[in-house]
Amino acid sequence: MLTQQAINVIKWDEQGLIPAIVQDNDTKDVLMMAYMNAEALQRTIDKGETVFWSRSRQTFWHKGETSGNTQAVMDIRIDCDADTLLILVEPEGVACHTGEASCFYRMLGDFIKNPVRE
Amino acid sequence: MLTQQAINVIKWDEQGLIPAIVQDNDTKDVLMMAYMNAEALQRTIDKGETVFWSRSRQTFWHKGETSGNTQAVMDIRIDCDADTLLILVEPEGVACHTGEASCFYRMLGDFIKNPVRE
Repeated sequence: MLTQQAINVIKWDEQGLIPAIVQDNDTKDVLMMAYMNAEALQRTIDKGETVFWSRSRQTFWHKGETSGNTQAVMDIRIDCDADTLLILVEPEGVACHTGEASCFYRMLGDFIKNPVRE
Repeated sequence: MLTQQAINVIKWDEQGLIPAIVQDNDTKDVLMMAYMNAEALQRTIDKGETVFWSRSRQTFWHKGETSGNTQAVMDIRIDCDADTLLILVEPEGVACHTGEASCFYRMLGDFIKNPVRE
């Protein structure tokens, strides 16, 4: 599916990445946001599970590979200016490494009072 | 609300920005993604409506200022590693400049076949 045409028309950033918002297909909760390069998007499509590019570790990151908390891909959408993806998934287990279902489990005000980056 | 503490603990990118996912508080549809700097986040909190930093125009962008399609802010959440915001809104009208309710109105496969960046 990821033809040269596809690679050409998606608007990758200066690092060759595109942000991918992950949303639960059933509950519609936003679970997390991570980044994909062309190869990660290709692997996501091939596997039918989310694969990201880890900017901190500079490596591919097949979500759930170690935790078992994979995300089965139901739909991939792209926004009007083609610089953000929205991935609809059926998650196996939680999305967040803290054990929370979603990475967005904190209100900004609470975080500022008790600022732990986890 | 945006004390120096808040500015210090949020993980801004190299350009001093943080991506902000905008989600409809009622339908839970993901409407758009845009970027905020500290001042845009402060203005968002003060106004109770979304204000972004336009990377292309290098200016503040009070959503709906010209179109009338404002977004009333219901909740602001931050993710586990404090580098992405999730803004829950009650939108007045559509989010996308194309007239679609959400900027994510296209499936990736359809976009690749007919790649218009709007």
